[in-house]
Amino acid sequence: MTGFVSFVGSGPGDPELLTLKAVDRLKRADAVLFDDLSSGPILSHARQGADLVGVGKRAGRPSPKQHHVSRLLVDYAQMDQRVVRLKSGDGGMFGRLEEELVALRDAGIPYEIIPGIPSACAAAAAAGIPLTRRLTARRVQFVTGHDAKGQLPPDLDLKALADPSASTVVFMGKRTFPRLFEALHAQGLPADTPAILAQSVSTPDQSIDRSTVADLARRLEQDVGNQPALILYGPFAEI
Amino acid sequence: MTGFVSFVGSGPGDPELLTLKAVDRLKRADAVLFDDLSSGPILSHARQGADLVGVGKRAGRPSPKQHHVSRLLVDYAQMDQRVVRLKSGDGGMFGRLEEELVALRDAGIPYEIIPGIPSACAAAAAAGIPLTRRLTARRVQFVTGHDAKGQLPPDLDLKALADPSASTVVFMGKRTFPRLFEALHAQGLPADTPAILAQSVSTPDQSIDRSTVADLARRLEQDVGNQPALILYGPFAEI
Repeated sequence: MTGFVSFVGSGPGDPELLTLKAVDRLKRADAVLFDDLSSGPILSHARQGADLVGVGKRAGRPSPKQHHVSRLLVDYAQMDQRVVRLKSGDGGMFGRLEEELVALRDAGIPYEIIPGIPSACAAAAAAGIPLTRRLTARRVQFVTGHDAKGQLPPDLDLKALADPSASTVVFMGKRTFPRLFEALHAQGLPADTPAILAQSVSTPDQSIDRSTVADLARRLEQDVGNQPALILYGPFAEI
Repeated sequence: MTGFVSFVGSGPGDPELLTLKAVDRLKRADAVLFDDLSSGPILSHARQGADLVGVGKRAGRPSPKQHHVSRLLVDYAQMDQRVVRLKSGDGGMFGRLEEELVALRDAGIPYEIIPGIPSACAAAAAAGIPLTRRLTARRVQFVTGHDAKGQLPPDLDLKALADPSASTVVFMGKRTFPRLFEALHAQGLPADTPAILAQSVSTPDQSIDRSTVADLARRLEQDVGNQPALILYGPFAEI
């Protein structure tokens, strides 16, 4: 059997933010299974004739079940195909990687994991700020803003997230941010903590909006729109 | 004036983990200022004839002062050069980016920031584990294990770092980990929490050692060696 799966982090969306290794694997793949955010121009690196299979799950839309995606991966590999499983950003961060790794392990299929540029790092770069600061932000944390039901996860470590000397990036958190802000403010996070709403990072639709956690919570109460977004807050540098 | 600086995250060390954009900027640079960990084969992407300037600061060795590096950047740009400032991993994470950005801003020199693969993501990929898990690791945090004097930073949020439902990556923390472990254990982090020592990630010298936080602290008490390393701990999947 020669089937093989490469889990490839596609970065935030700009095809120039793929790694050389990711491009190499795309060029050699027989099949590419991709999410919504790892589609578009990124797929132009795949060779002509490769199967391009969208298995996206975007918030608010029906999508293939996770076990169906794992099944597809196994099926392609068992047909001796070279498969690339593209995941936006870095697959190891909020990418549901574990379920698919376990499915391949159980089926005895070899694989590799190629890291990608996390969208959080691309968002900070686009905003022109480092995520760490020497004396004031020695910790960086990434957290998901919704659980499997689209709600604010009930077991968040609010004290850690309200630490004024950490930089925090909330993934998939636009809808729940007003409630998260309330909870963090109750834990002592100042209302005027700098916040950045980074949408469609590294794509032609990119927008980077600076405000404060309180203002951002108010705005998201009104309208969340439908662009993929990250929320960053913390003691950011003014550069 | 046509001087321009590209801050480029070089990723963890494997030149194949550079992004296409990073390679493009290296090919077009008149001067490349690099750290120790962004040297070696990565520099083979620079064009022949470019100035290659090592400005590394490796733990325990004398190194150029930060203001000297900023001064060099400004000097090159003011000579109308295209400059690439290579920083290992992602420059925005523990990369001392802020000081250099401020120096360029104050000198009125235009720049861009190109994100790179954080060494933490590459370490997790090499270890074959995702940093997040759907139900048990919804938060990921990155922290530095030493302050400007090489000591454990005095103001770490130990409660956040001892949270058993977060994945933690400690940068530059081999020497201080025995003390950090003691402090975290006192805050309730179980001694048998899975830990990974990831050294020289993505290079030919890579080693990935799995143990527990207690065992790793004991081993590092004896010998830290001199490879660059990350320490990962948390409720990691067994895959």
